[in-house]
Amino acid sequence: MTTQTYDVAGIGNAIVDVLTQSEDSFLEEHGLIKGAMTLVDETTAERLYGAMGSGIECSGGSAANTIAGIASLGGRGAFVGKVREDQLGQIFAHDIRALGVAFTTAPAKTGPSTARCMIMVTPDAQRTMQTYLGASVELGPEDVDAEIIAAAQMTYLEGYLWDRPAAKQAFILAATLAHEAGNKVALSLSDPFCVDRHREDFLDLLAGHVDILFANEQEILSLYQVDSFEEAVDQVRGHCEIAALTRSEKGSIVINGEKTHEVPAEPVRHVVDTTGAGDSYAAGFLYGLCYGFPPPACARIGGISAAEIIGHFGARPEIPLSQLMDEKLG
Amino acid sequence: MTTQTYDVAGIGNAIVDVLTQSEDSFLEEHGLIKGAMTLVDETTAERLYGAMGSGIECSGGSAANTIAGIASLGGRGAFVGKVREDQLGQIFAHDIRALGVAFTTAPAKTGPSTARCMIMVTPDAQRTMQTYLGASVELGPEDVDAEIIAAAQMTYLEGYLWDRPAAKQAFILAATLAHEAGNKVALSLSDPFCVDRHREDFLDLLAGHVDILFANEQEILSLYQVDSFEEAVDQVRGHCEIAALTRSEKGSIVINGEKTHEVPAEPVRHVVDTTGAGDSYAAGFLYGLCYGFPPPACARIGGISAAEIIGHFGARPEIPLSQLMDEKLG
Repeated sequence: MTTQTYDVAGIGNAIVDVLTQSEDSFLEEHGLIKGAMTLVDETTAERLYGAMGSGIECSGGSAANTIAGIASLGGRGAFVGKVREDQLGQIFAHDIRALGVAFTTAPAKTGPSTARCMIMVTPDAQRTMQTYLGASVELGPEDVDAEIIAAAQMTYLEGYLWDRPAAKQAFILAATLAHEAGNKVALSLSDPFCVDRHREDFLDLLAGHVDILFANEQEILSLYQVDSFEEAVDQVRGHCEIAALTRSEKGSIVINGEKTHEVPAEPVRHVVDTTGAGDSYAAGFLYGLCYGFPPPACARIGGISAAEIIGHFGARPEIPLSQLMDEKLG
Repeated sequence: MTTQTYDVAGIGNAIVDVLTQSEDSFLEEHGLIKGAMTLVDETTAERLYGAMGSGIECSGGSAANTIAGIASLGGRGAFVGKVREDQLGQIFAHDIRALGVAFTTAPAKTGPSTARCMIMVTPDAQRTMQTYLGASVELGPEDVDAEIIAAAQMTYLEGYLWDRPAAKQAFILAATLAHEAGNKVALSLSDPFCVDRHREDFLDLLAGHVDILFANEQEILSLYQVDSFEEAVDQVRGHCEIAALTRSEKGSIVINGEKTHEVPAEPVRHVVDTTGAGDSYAAGFLYGLCYGFPPPACARIGGISAAEIIGHFGARPEIPLSQLMDEKLG
C-alpha cells in the first residue's frame, strides 16, 4: 500500500513500566489521582517505590507502546526517544528492537537514569501512573532523525512530550518535517491532566500541525472545556482530518469531515489491566490507515488491538496482533 | 506454632528473570536444552538476549521464589543472596522486601552485574532457562548471617548454589549453624543437570546435613542413577527425614520414615508457564511443616501454591497464597 520505508514513526518518552497490583486504599494513602498520570521527581519516585508492593517490569511509554503495536500488527515502525546507558535503558532498547522497530536515538551517557513509570493497577483494572521522566527529558530537536520522519507515512506524537520544553521543540520540528515530506501527523492527547496543563498549545497544534487526533472522552472534554461529549464532537469536527475518540466499553467514535462513525468496543473476557489500551487502539487505527482501510475499519482494528492489551498485565501485546486480526477479520 | 523470629531462611542465587515467549524452533536454533537450567557467561548471555524476543522482567531465583511464597502464605521469611548495587539489584531487593522478607545481604559494590536468567517459555508452558550468575557468585560464607539462621525454624538451600565453590561453603556453613541451633535443613535438588554435575556431593549432603529433601522425578532418578521412580523412592527412604517428590500433573509423593503418601495435583485451568512451580510447591510444603501440619497436608498446600504459579507468567504469586488457602482449605 505504501512505498515508504516506515508506516509510522513515533516520538515519545522512552519508559520502563513497573507494574504492581494495588488496593484503592494505597492510592488514597499516598494522595494519588486514580486513572491519571502524574509526574514525580526522583525523591518522590524512590519514596513511592519503597512503599509499593513487588512488581514486574516491562518496556512501556505511550508512543513506544503504539509503535510496538504497529510492529505486532505486521507494520514497519520507527521510534525516537531517549534512554540512559544503563540496565533499564538496555532493556527498553532490546524490547523495541526485538519487535523489528528501528530505534536509533543515541542513549544519554550521563545524567538521570532511564525513565520509570510506577503503575498501580487496582482491582477494577484501572491504572494510576506515577512517572519519573529521568533520561527521557533529554530528548530534544537534535534527536529527531529527519531521514526517518521523511521515510514514514505517518509521524505519531504523544501529548506527554509537551511537558518538557526541549521535547516540545522536537515535537514541532518532527511535525514540520513530516508535512514537508508530504506525510501525515497524528497526535494523542495522552491524559486529561496533560491537556489541562497545555490546553492552548494543543489547540494551536490542532489548528496548524495535526491531521489525525486521538483522545478519550475525558481528554476531549477537557480540551474544549465542555460538559457533553456531543459538544466536544461538534468542536473537533473540522479541526483535523480525522478524530478518533475512544469511550472505553462504549467503543469509539470517528469524526471524518462531515461523517461520524460509531464503532462498538471489542468484548473482553477478563478486564485485567487497562494500561496501554489507548496506545494499542492508536496502533490499530494508524495501521489501518496506512494500509488503506476506511476509518470505521480502522476503529475496529484499534478496538481489537486494545482488547488484547486489556486482557492481561502490561501494555504490550502477548499475542501477535497480526494473528488476532487474521482470526477476527479473516 | 513457632516461637522463632523466622519460619524459613532461604539461601540462593539472587536473580532477576527475563521472561519471553518462544517457539521450540528458537531453542533448537540456539542449541538450548528444553526444560533445563544452563549456566552461561556474559558474552553468551548478551548474544542470546540480542536474539530473543521482547520480554518482561520479574524478580526470581529458586530459593528466593520459595521465600516469596512463604511470605505470600503469611509466613515469616528471610533471604540470603547477592546482588550488585545496580538497577536490577535494586529491583530484586525491593521486591523481596516489599513482601515483608528480611533481606540484609550487602550488595556487591564492584564486579559483575546482578544475575539474570533468560527464560524461554514455549507454547507447552515449559520453561528453558539460561542463567548469567553475575554478582550472585560473590556469595560466600561471610554473607551467612548466623543470627538469622539461628532464628529460623528451617533453613532452605537451593542445589544451584553448589555450582560455585564459595557458595558451597556458605551452604555447608548455614546447614551446620542451623543444626547447632536445633533447626531443620531443607534442600531442593534444583535441576537434573545440576544433580548430574554434583551427584556425589549431594549424596554426602543428604547423609549428613539435610532433613527435608525436595526433588522432581527427573532429579531423583538422576541422583540415584536409576530408571524407575519406585527404585528412587526406595533409595531415598531413610536418607532424610522427609522427601517430597513432585511429579507434575501426577501430584507429589511424600516419603516420611516408613510411610508413603500420594497426594494428587491441584487442577490448573490454563497451564501458562511452569517457571517457579517447584519453588512454590516447596514454599507451601515448608509453610505447612512450620505450622504443624502433617506431611500429606503440607503436600496439598504445596500443590495449591504451585498451581497458582502455573496459571500465569512469572515465578511469584499474583494472588496472595494465604487467600487461596482460605478459599481451598477453608
